[in-house]
Amino acid sequence: MISRMSTLFVRTLREDPADAEVPSHRLLVRAGYIRRTAPGMYTWLPLGLRVLRRIETIIREEMDAIGAQEVSFPALLPREPYEATNRWTEYGPNIFRLKDRKDADYLLGPTHEEMFTLLVKDLYSSYKDLPLSIYQIQTKYRDEARPRAGLLRGREFTMKDSYSFDVDDAGLDASYQAHREAYIRIFDRLGFEYVIVKATSGAMGGSRSEEFLAKAEVGEDTYVRCTNCDYAANVEAVEVRAPEALPYDDAPAAHAEPTPDTPTIATLVDHLNEAYPRSDRPWEAGDTLKNVLVVLLHPDGTKEPLAIGLPGDREVDLKRLGGQLEPLEVEPMDDDELRKHPDLVKGYIGPEVLGTEGKSGIRFLVDPRVVTGTRWVTGANVDGSHVIDLVAGRDFTPDGTIEAADVRDGDPCPRCEDGTLESARGIEMGHIFQLGRKYAEALDLKVLDENGKLVTVTMGSYGIGPSRGVAAIAENTLDEIGLCWPRNVAPYDVHVLATGKDDAIYDAAERLAADLDRQGVAVLYDDRPKVSPGVKFKDAELIGVPTIVTVGRGLADGLVEVKDRRSGERTEVAVADAAAHLIGVVRG
Amino acid sequence: MISRMSTLFVRTLREDPADAEVPSHRLLVRAGYIRRTAPGMYTWLPLGLRVLRRIETIIREEMDAIGAQEVSFPALLPREPYEATNRWTEYGPNIFRLKDRKDADYLLGPTHEEMFTLLVKDLYSSYKDLPLSIYQIQTKYRDEARPRAGLLRGREFTMKDSYSFDVDDAGLDASYQAHREAYIRIFDRLGFEYVIVKATSGAMGGSRSEEFLAKAEVGEDTYVRCTNCDYAANVEAVEVRAPEALPYDDAPAAHAEPTPDTPTIATLVDHLNEAYPRSDRPWEAGDTLKNVLVVLLHPDGTKEPLAIGLPGDREVDLKRLGGQLEPLEVEPMDDDELRKHPDLVKGYIGPEVLGTEGKSGIRFLVDPRVVTGTRWVTGANVDGSHVIDLVAGRDFTPDGTIEAADVRDGDPCPRCEDGTLESARGIEMGHIFQLGRKYAEALDLKVLDENGKLVTVTMGSYGIGPSRGVAAIAENTLDEIGLCWPRNVAPYDVHVLATGKDDAIYDAAERLAADLDRQGVAVLYDDRPKVSPGVKFKDAELIGVPTIVTVGRGLADGLVEVKDRRSGERTEVAVADAAAHLIGVVRG
Repeated sequence: MISRMSTLFVRTLREDPADAEVPSHRLLVRAGYIRRTAPGMYTWLPLGLRVLRRIETIIREEMDAIGAQEVSFPALLPREPYEATNRWTEYGPNIFRLKDRKDADYLLGPTHEEMFTLLVKDLYSSYKDLPLSIYQIQTKYRDEARPRAGLLRGREFTMKDSYSFDVDDAGLDASYQAHREAYIRIFDRLGFEYVIVKATSGAMGGSRSEEFLAKAEVGEDTYVRCTNCDYAANVEAVEVRAPEALPYDDAPAAHAEPTPDTPTIATLVDHLNEAYPRSDRPWEAGDTLKNVLVVLLHPDGTKEPLAIGLPGDREVDLKRLGGQLEPLEVEPMDDDELRKHPDLVKGYIGPEVLGTEGKSGIRFLVDPRVVTGTRWVTGANVDGSHVIDLVAGRDFTPDGTIEAADVRDGDPCPRCEDGTLESARGIEMGHIFQLGRKYAEALDLKVLDENGKLVTVTMGSYGIGPSRGVAAIAENTLDEIGLCWPRNVAPYDVHVLATGKDDAIYDAAERLAADLDRQGVAVLYDDRPKVSPGVKFKDAELIGVPTIVTVGRGLADGLVEVKDRRSGERTEVAVADAAAHLIGVVRG
Repeated sequence: MISRMSTLFVRTLREDPADAEVPSHRLLVRAGYIRRTAPGMYTWLPLGLRVLRRIETIIREEMDAIGAQEVSFPALLPREPYEATNRWTEYGPNIFRLKDRKDADYLLGPTHEEMFTLLVKDLYSSYKDLPLSIYQIQTKYRDEARPRAGLLRGREFTMKDSYSFDVDDAGLDASYQAHREAYIRIFDRLGFEYVIVKATSGAMGGSRSEEFLAKAEVGEDTYVRCTNCDYAANVEAVEVRAPEALPYDDAPAAHAEPTPDTPTIATLVDHLNEAYPRSDRPWEAGDTLKNVLVVLLHPDGTKEPLAIGLPGDREVDLKRLGGQLEPLEVEPMDDDELRKHPDLVKGYIGPEVLGTEGKSGIRFLVDPRVVTGTRWVTGANVDGSHVIDLVAGRDFTPDGTIEAADVRDGDPCPRCEDGTLESARGIEMGHIFQLGRKYAEALDLKVLDENGKLVTVTMGSYGIGPSRGVAAIAENTLDEIGLCWPRNVAPYDVHVLATGKDDAIYDAAERLAADLDRQGVAVLYDDRPKVSPGVKFKDAELIGVPTIVTVGRGLADGLVEVKDRRSGERTEVAVADAAAHLIGVVRG
């Protein structure tokens, strides 16, 4: 097909849109791919829609190839199924809710686990019907508090969501693996840099979970990878390797010491080195146990205090902590809240009063590094006093461990012996989960097994965001002059520019476009007679079709210029050979 | 591609669903094409989605062929544009409204005129940019009071809506004509019986308007067609041909007469023939002028009385009347409301007190047949009294005319001399409108013309409902045993049944399916080993793929049976020739 710039519904802009925070957003708007309709909501112009559809087509082909079957649910959904799984409440203000004319409650679906579960329950009843994988490519909604970065965090967006249904864990593993491999094929075909990282499963529940991230500095997700092995994980999913428990038979008894005016770790360490110097090495922040109080917000609005114990050289990473506690939300405990707990002495809180068995009754979870036998300096629950030589497992026993401490470049790899972690940023574009039986149990999806017994089905959930993908791929591939699409998702295969005023130029360009079209090459043809060559070049660079052909001055010598948008490499080609040459380039 | 009944996500049902009112709904559910999710909302199963996609593809191809360009808007839309055109109010309870977390108003788009208008305003500014036609295929929402008949009147549905933009009326005519021809090609390709009828433009405003109806007895739309010429119109759009005005010089003066106990037309006619017999012919209902009071409900909630004068042998057709008055709603005036108008004497209302100049001040519109010079018996505004020889244009002058009287089989054709009208029912599947400048004016869409002057753009609006289309085509083509798809929209080209227990049968069926697949034929293969031939036949008849091939007992003689689903015609074909034969059948 041929689209002509003279009639294509597009207007390229020289200025950046005022609200654009990231390069992909700026360029997608400037190049005429999308227009903002409302906060977090975008209209797809023809160029953008072509990219979106190509991504969807690749996804569909690979889903079909693993035997997944396409269905399509409404976006507007009744409340009841989401009530049954408690997500109606858990989503809080993050979903759009509405009432119909009969005052019945509806939501705009943020994800469809409940609906798929009920559909399978509706149609299927036997182990013979399974395994089953079904999917849809459909519009989804989240009422984000801070929609940002154009398509990267929108409030209306498209998702491919698939779900697998199996009778047992081995089946789920196989379905998960099939999806994982399909996702790798999809991401490879899309043609940009991505990384697969271990992930938390968050509000979805379930066990095994991985994310497919587009590498991008502007990404919201921070992940780490090992410098030595192939370990990679979303920061929220990093599991600190707990050291072995230490013997503590020779440890002195814990002893409280006056430490006036040491409400911070830094002042405490200074004081320790001055008042209680150690012979072997100076006190460091890592010798102290910091006890941080936070408040958990339950979906029903109730609040619960929680204490986190971690080495004093680490900070609590609220995002990591939140990832462990979803669907609860976490916020730091403020002084007003702190005063409600008279056993807690600000700046001098110690394990003695913490824990469900402690005086305060506040649940106390510690960093995995706080293993039995480790010795700590920590608050003595008295103003101006700390305890030294407090031994975990001897002097205090926390309620459990939690991954709440920040992860840093250079931290040891949790998997291999020699590697260390380094961090980078990415954009979540795909996510695969082993949901397990959470939804099947809540909605009573059972089938008869081989022995005629009812068994609860186990499920997987697999998502890719095609609309976010447009921005993620743009972000990963753009350069300083414009968009620069991978060949498989570009809106057109070839951008033909006719530059100059001679009819011969336009005739030759027209013939070239027609030749390419006949061979199934999608052509964007800049046929605008009154637009300068400079503007045409700039538009072509901005729009980012991978191959740009200029039919211009060189035509007098029988030549056209073929430029590779990414490398900038230019080749002169005889006009007679141009179509054949370009087909070679396009087909690789 | 090959889908196997053993794994296809489908469950055919022998029983009709309890809520199904029409055959297409019953069969689409029973054959496993759709499942109900909520009132007026359906989930598409794989079979149904394939039909829907084929319809959408045909529409897309023909839209692209006339140079219309595809875009895609959000379904969730901000209130402001709809406020600017007053439709936020006019739609009343018929749209879904919601608030986001910041309390901003949104709606789920029932149609996108405003958004398209604003997008063109955003991008374009010159006559050189026009003409332009842009379209989307997208999910739309209406909160119907009475969702019914499955997909025929749903609350979430898909629409292809396109809009044309031109600088002048001639341009709009050309764009309208291009769309009309594209629609004819689309409907021809879809392969079912349809009719194009003149329509009212309803809430859309504008002038020329036609509907594409699928012929179906269960349709909600009644249309009439001329037995003589090619006139066809939705009943709401029929325009009665007004007779010539009559001379009334020799008419006697109007005279009130006592007509006690004659509150109805029938009692009045009886009384007239008894008390005031005419020499030439008896009094008939058509000699009386019936004045009917209704109440108009404005979108803002205010009410307005309206009087309709029409020959006594006609009834007011509220749907026809409503069609003329949209977006206002119409309801009969009840006695409570009537009592608020002391000048109106129930059963004896006459023109004297009606009209904006009359004592009541109530607007008075008459049927087009009530032309100047016609003589009537009508109420005298006194209980038990009527006026005889009341002459239109002499004794009373209405505020205007309105098409409110019912249309009947046998009525004269409004266009030709000799034809009469006959009625039939259909399902609206497409609608094309000349909107004119209504939206461009409300939203200030102007472009510079050739002389550098700002001119308001004129628009057309063109819709087809693909999801309703699935049901409309099903309804038009089904028979007593099941669905029976036209070839171009069938979910598969060929349904291969393996019947029997021999491995040889399944091997041969498998090979046939694979041969067809290699040639690009879409095959549904019933490979279920433990299902009886009878069930397989019944399922195939129900599902309605146009060509059914049975590989069964005949295989011993080297034969398979090819059955045409519609005609029921069976042909024995040598198994070796089956693939070639079927490809001939499929490709026509």
